[in-house]
Amino acid sequence: MSAEALDAMITETVILPAGHGLALRLALGERVTVVCDNGKQVVDTWAFAAEDGSHAMSMEHSRVENSRLCAKEGGQYVTDRREPILAVDRDASPGIHDTIMAACDAQRYVNLGCTHPHRSCADNLHEAVAAIGFAIARVPQPLNLFMNIPIEADQRLVQGMPQGAPGDHVTLRALRDVVVAFSCCPQDITPINGGGPADVTLRIERRPG
Amino acid sequence: MSAEALDAMITETVILPAGHGLALRLALGERVTVVCDNGKQVVDTWAFAAEDGSHAMSMEHSRVENSRLCAKEGGQYVTDRREPILAVDRDASPGIHDTIMAACDAQRYVNLGCTHPHRSCADNLHEAVAAIGFAIARVPQPLNLFMNIPIEADQRLVQGMPQGAPGDHVTLRALRDVVVAFSCCPQDITPINGGGPADVTLRIERRPG
Repeated sequence: MSAEALDAMITETVILPAGHGLALRLALGERVTVVCDNGKQVVDTWAFAAEDGSHAMSMEHSRVENSRLCAKEGGQYVTDRREPILAVDRDASPGIHDTIMAACDAQRYVNLGCTHPHRSCADNLHEAVAAIGFAIARVPQPLNLFMNIPIEADQRLVQGMPQGAPGDHVTLRALRDVVVAFSCCPQDITPINGGGPADVTLRIERRPG
Repeated sequence: MSAEALDAMITETVILPAGHGLALRLALGERVTVVCDNGKQVVDTWAFAAEDGSHAMSMEHSRVENSRLCAKEGGQYVTDRREPILAVDRDASPGIHDTIMAACDAQRYVNLGCTHPHRSCADNLHEAVAAIGFAIARVPQPLNLFMNIPIEADQRLVQGMPQGAPGDHVTLRALRDVVVAFSCCPQDITPINGGGPADVTLRIERRPG
């Protein structure tokens, strides 16, 4: 996109409250920047073709097409039909994002010993897309922005703490008309959110009108 | 399962031809052993709840529940509802199996430069379940038995060669009534099958009657 086209964008800033989710529509070329305000908050991120909620951004297909666990700045993610869906225009973070751990869900917290209902990323996704009247077929593997899961030589996966700094951010650009959804991960039992969930900021760049 | 119960099983041996797929039903406690006859052949493996083809074995949920990339001997895989579905009763191989690379599909081969139709694991799954009249909702991330995808420190994924020996095998036991499906991966462009697909053997242990 040219600098002129980006200049013409209108930027809206939204606070995504700790532990909650949000879905929004982006037209081709529009962007969203996810700001990790405290440097320790994981944001589960999904994208779907705007015209078909069963056509989703796919981490497993992106890993093959990119030959990488997660895309770098300048790279992109593809769908389960191997079609480009989101570009990484900017990654102002250590570039440590997870693509292999399923979204937390109600059962995850039961398995962790919770005896009361607990918010989850899977429920946040369902609530967020329902709020904009968008139907999805399932909860795909998310792009877990800022999530740090070290992989040991013996295949063990560690629930690490985010390695970034306050204000780290990632800018994603729509490579087609999409619905994107975010969950400010409510996990407060493992250390993946640095001990407890915190608000994050979304900066949305849209064309006027 | 007791030794007596296993003694009572009837073993059927099936050759899975290079590049082709097969689906079969296993009742709770029944087992299948996948034999990598030449030591270099990847076998994409899926499992579904017998009563609901939308309830599938999930690598992403298994990674979380196991805190490992793939289960070890004595471990198990869970579904996308975090319910146990397959146990690993025996792993007579180096234990290097992939859980992060999507099944190859027609588009994968187009992207690799193929100008003619190419068999794929995704098509093999669809054909295999159709052949037994079983409906599935999608192609889940497979358990890619014997597949060697080294993960570099910079997040790069390498298309490695299998590290095993002829006759390596893995025995999977059904933890509920299931449909399991296998694809003898037809990939012959990257080195993941040691240069070209080869037949593998399935040993199926069922209760009499």
